[in-house]
Amino acid sequence: VRPLVSLVGAGPGAADLMTLRAVERLRAAEVVFHDRLVDPAALDFAPPQAERVLVGKAPGVREWSQPRINRLLVAAARQGRRVVRLKCGDPGVFGRAGEEIAALAEAGFAVEIVPGVTAASAAAAEIGRPLTDRAARRSLLLVSAHPAEGAPPLDWAALGAADATLAVYMGVARAGEVAAALMAGGADPATPVAVVERAGRADARRTAATLGDLAAVIAAQAVRNPAILLIDPPRRAAGAAAAPRRAAAAG
Amino acid sequence: VRPLVSLVGAGPGAADLMTLRAVERLRAAEVVFHDRLVDPAALDFAPPQAERVLVGKAPGVREWSQPRINRLLVAAARQGRRVVRLKCGDPGVFGRAGEEIAALAEAGFAVEIVPGVTAASAAAAEIGRPLTDRAARRSLLLVSAHPAEGAPPLDWAALGAADATLAVYMGVARAGEVAAALMAGGADPATPVAVVERAGRADARRTAATLGDLAAVIAAQAVRNPAILLIDPPRRAAGAAAAPRRAAAAG
Repeated sequence: VRPLVSLVGAGPGAADLMTLRAVERLRAAEVVFHDRLVDPAALDFAPPQAERVLVGKAPGVREWSQPRINRLLVAAARQGRRVVRLKCGDPGVFGRAGEEIAALAEAGFAVEIVPGVTAASAAAAEIGRPLTDRAARRSLLLVSAHPAEGAPPLDWAALGAADATLAVYMGVARAGEVAAALMAGGADPATPVAVVERAGRADARRTAATLGDLAAVIAAQAVRNPAILLIDPPRRAAGAAAAPRRAAAAG
Repeated sequence: VRPLVSLVGAGPGAADLMTLRAVERLRAAEVVFHDRLVDPAALDFAPPQAERVLVGKAPGVREWSQPRINRLLVAAARQGRRVVRLKCGDPGVFGRAGEEIAALAEAGFAVEIVPGVTAASAAAAEIGRPLTDRAARRSLLLVSAHPAEGAPPLDWAALGAADATLAVYMGVARAGEVAAALMAGGADPATPVAVVERAGRADARRTAATLGDLAAVIAAQAVRNPAILLIDPPRRAAGAAAAPRRAAAAG
């Protein structure tokens, strides 16, 4: 028996990048709680009589706190309704799905997760280049530029030493800080960065930058969220200290 | 004008985890070159008269080399046919898409990438848990256990220091090596590992392990590919040397 509640990935923002399974869940939904950035066309897959509830944050709109969203999901499940929680991208990647699953579990409700296309995949597709290759981009690190309140800052020097393409989510506002931290960790300012806005959508825009000019380029081009930063595996700057992992290997 | 050639993500193995856009490209295809692990039901979306070419490697079957696949794609494009290269998961993640794009570009053909759901997302959905959260799993590292021939081995100690959930692709055969390398880098043998076979499919199977018993559990449970290892952000073993990043921060 399928759980009453499905956390469904809507994909990166274009309705046709949803999966067939996501569409099927929407068609069976009695109530849909959706993020602000979900394509309105995605919601059209739900039956006309299904209730649609926008739970995302938006400028000028009363903010929906995570505990409030959790309470709404639990209340709808208690009513025995078939609930779809429609989240941008993949629910498992920076989607706070864990908090919603925990609240529902505490109330006795199982949850199904329907995975989706995450924004990094759509951003790479937009620039016509894979996220990994067998030479220079051997792994892929997905990271959010917005740490949780009270959490320690991410260790960008360690992240930059992992020989991975960095896909930075929610990175527009903090791009300058992220670039500075990576460079402070020894990354070459010439390391290429691709900035992709609205990946997967007809109005997608690609902007090329480097770590060194990233903040200036974002300001000059008026880059806006939703956007992903794809940072090539940071090269070591000439004369920079050895990478942390080398230092550790020697010690 | 859409390019003649589309590199299309088939998702993690269940046909209903394909995107609507992938289905649309299949419906328009004149020839489909597909990996071995693609769900046969996915191919049913292509017109009956479309040619289907299996280009994956399989035990006992003549191996298709990457250069040969590249040549076939170029030859089909030169014939003016509408080509779909259907790849498991997301084409940009461990899909060797870069080599195919380069071969086509050299022959003068542009390529469109249709992103897909990558296996890590499906594996996390299968165990009902997100890949990231705001406390203990603040980033996500996708890595292949099979480095390219001639490439230096991955630096597992550095990878383990990134405070990231590790999603290891193609990791069944080398799980013992991967676990040993992470533990040699200071990771606690008690670090939890979820092994997910055939994520997203009706016959999916989940097996719980730790870094310390991973190889034994995989052998005892006869775990087979396709499978993903989801390793929690490696905890430092008691008494282990400081993490590389700490050593670097102090130096």
